[in-house]
Amino acid sequence: MTGKIFPTAQDAENAFYEALERSDLEGMMAVWAEDEDIVCVHPGGPRLTGQDQVRESWARIFAAGGRARVHISQQVAISAMMLAVHSVHENFTVEGEARPRAPIVATNVYLRTAAGWRLIVHHGSPAPGTAEPPPPPPKILH
Amino acid sequence: MTGKIFPTAQDAENAFYEALERSDLEGMMAVWAEDEDIVCVHPGGPRLTGQDQVRESWARIFAAGGRARVHISQQVAISAMMLAVHSVHENFTVEGEARPRAPIVATNVYLRTAAGWRLIVHHGSPAPGTAEPPPPPPKILH
Repeated sequence: MTGKIFPTAQDAENAFYEALERSDLEGMMAVWAEDEDIVCVHPGGPRLTGQDQVRESWARIFAAGGRARVHISQQVAISAMMLAVHSVHENFTVEGEARPRAPIVATNVYLRTAAGWRLIVHHGSPAPGTAEPPPPPPKILH
Repeated sequence: MTGKIFPTAQDAENAFYEALERSDLEGMMAVWAEDEDIVCVHPGGPRLTGQDQVRESWARIFAAGGRARVHISQQVAISAMMLAVHSVHENFTVEGEARPRAPIVATNVYLRTAAGWRLIVHHGSPAPGTAEPPPPPPKILH
């Protein structure tokens, strides 16, 4: 895996969603920590752990095609020295579909490694549409 | 909220599932951080944020009744100084039902506060049954 360095958890999160939009498997895997404890739960799917299961799942998703745009909203971010947790709504717009899909709620956890911030947990599930107030600004713990 | 102190994230997790089994609302809320950034996603449900939404959701769940036992398996735990992330399978057995239900995969995030470890994110979603190898031992980051 080439050594892409993300100076902040937000940089890693941006790269994650960019890779997802581009169906870019190498870009996607460059975001994940090189660690057998990584966890990925696709909406409605089982828990996948480790590089092999996670890579294989994204390869399958990207091979299925279907270009999508994803707009992230309602982020709640909590970060400490080594770990950062972002809760976001993923709002997908799929080419050829008139309306955006119902949002996915995702919990993303980033780890500060020697090679910058990397994703260690991505947990997504369908979120029935609800009106929520805008989230407060990110909180930093020192 | 009375000042229950959980010396480790695992203690907070144990208290969370004990409160869930007992339908104990005060015990449940004692596990959560007193923070408006807490996030709770029940399986198939929307993202709830803040004490009021989270408390109200558990009150509704507990009022609906139905005693359940929950057995936790396949934990993957990653912890740093201030934050700990546990991914677990929740295996529910409901009174009056012959078989255990399909597992729920949950991402639980704990924050070290002045009052010990508290839950800040609980994200659950239905996990189609899959055979997984036993997880490696917990990893501690210093």
